[in-house]
Amino acid sequence: MIFVGERINGGFKDIQRAIKEKDKTIIQHWAKIQSEAGADYLDVNMGAASNKVEDFVWMIETVQEAVSTPISIDSNKPAFIKEALKVCKKPALINSTTADKEKLDEIVPLAVEHGASLVGVCMDKKGSPQDVNRRVELGATIFSEAVEKGLPEDRIFLDPVTMPLKFLQEQAGNVIEAIRQLTLLSSPPPHIILGLSNISSKTKEPSLINRIFLVMCIEAGLDAAICDVTDQELVNSAITAELILNKQIYSDAFIKAYRESRRK
Amino acid sequence: MIFVGERINGGFKDIQRAIKEKDKTIIQHWAKIQSEAGADYLDVNMGAASNKVEDFVWMIETVQEAVSTPISIDSNKPAFIKEALKVCKKPALINSTTADKEKLDEIVPLAVEHGASLVGVCMDKKGSPQDVNRRVELGATIFSEAVEKGLPEDRIFLDPVTMPLKFLQEQAGNVIEAIRQLTLLSSPPPHIILGLSNISSKTKEPSLINRIFLVMCIEAGLDAAICDVTDQELVNSAITAELILNKQIYSDAFIKAYRESRRK
Repeated sequence: MIFVGERINGGFKDIQRAIKEKDKTIIQHWAKIQSEAGADYLDVNMGAASNKVEDFVWMIETVQEAVSTPISIDSNKPAFIKEALKVCKKPALINSTTADKEKLDEIVPLAVEHGASLVGVCMDKKGSPQDVNRRVELGATIFSEAVEKGLPEDRIFLDPVTMPLKFLQEQAGNVIEAIRQLTLLSSPPPHIILGLSNISSKTKEPSLINRIFLVMCIEAGLDAAICDVTDQELVNSAITAELILNKQIYSDAFIKAYRESRRK
Repeated sequence: MIFVGERINGGFKDIQRAIKEKDKTIIQHWAKIQSEAGADYLDVNMGAASNKVEDFVWMIETVQEAVSTPISIDSNKPAFIKEALKVCKKPALINSTTADKEKLDEIVPLAVEHGASLVGVCMDKKGSPQDVNRRVELGATIFSEAVEKGLPEDRIFLDPVTMPLKFLQEQAGNVIEAIRQLTLLSSPPPHIILGLSNISSKTKEPSLINRIFLVMCIEAGLDAAICDVTDQELVNSAITAELILNKQIYSDAFIKAYRESRRK
């Protein structure tokens, strides 16, 4: 499982304040906590806190002063991604492109050039996908375009777009089925990733819903998630799901073994 | 989800003692606790505590004095099943037949005659299945034989045989894939059931492994389980999985709503 820590996001009030006041402490606090919890990447997103590229670069540099975990560059603006890539010390995850030709034309070459991986969100200018077929169609477009432009298959992450269970209940099953079909695009399958927390938006049981949905998605072929890596039950559930799928050899202390095998 | 409470089983020391001493208290204690936890059936199994049919009948009558939850007659001996059916006050679940012709010839007509449902375990005299195909082949045999003998499809439960993750790790994935394929046998699909706790046998994390495996199986099409219905996290996980699959309409209090809708 590839875990992307979601917490350094201007959508959270403490991060928003940190960006505005250029307060490194809170950003580095979350960088450390998420890295210690086992994050493979730390997502960095300004939210609405700023629209200046220098603030985005400052956030990334602030994270990198505290930890060595690679960065997930969470922006859909090619200019921001370009500047961010210049300062990333380790191969980054670009989060994200859509299936639109102009986005792919701009962003895929950046990933190729910088040795970065790339999240391709299964949507386009026409909007969010409402069924399984549209997700798979857009995922296939992204995958084939990225491969054609020279991005190695194992650096492509397809995101079938999680939607809130509370408001779009039938979409959860569509996402799961889309995951299953997207894994068939290549062998070995492409990485499949989700922005997990969206599923439980505005519900009263976010942690329970997040982890049950994650387990169901892993069963269908998901191997990466942008999520709350500090939710220990969530991470343990994912580890157990992968154990059941025989991706880790059983031992009585399989959770500890997994965590130790991943410590950097 | 159809929950079968596993706890009234002579394999547990307290039940073993209760059978030997004809102590109704402990059996009725578990009958009540499991019924209150939402069991749709209460499994009754003598284990090695006795081999007398009158003890089995006594257990069932003891349960029925305490609660009105239907009985799951857990025996593979046609003579025992026959006597048990005579005393069951509500339509029972017969647990179980195998795919062997002589078993099907004896047990299916009992289910037909008594309005009972029937668990068909995907194994035969040659032993336990070791792969997906064998499970599906044996399940298909049971399903078609039972239908041909007049058992309505919605009273057939196929069991693809859970094995301990600790010792046969690759079988867990085979069970999940077998569930997916068994659901294709008819439309609507047959019920698929598992003896869940076997998956976590001798592990240090039985509750975690049980619930993650259950969620993965529900995603594949499982709709029934013989399990520890008093494990609240297990039951809540199953309820959440079914919510995600859109089998219950979302409400903020979906767990409470589910439990209340099932109260007898």
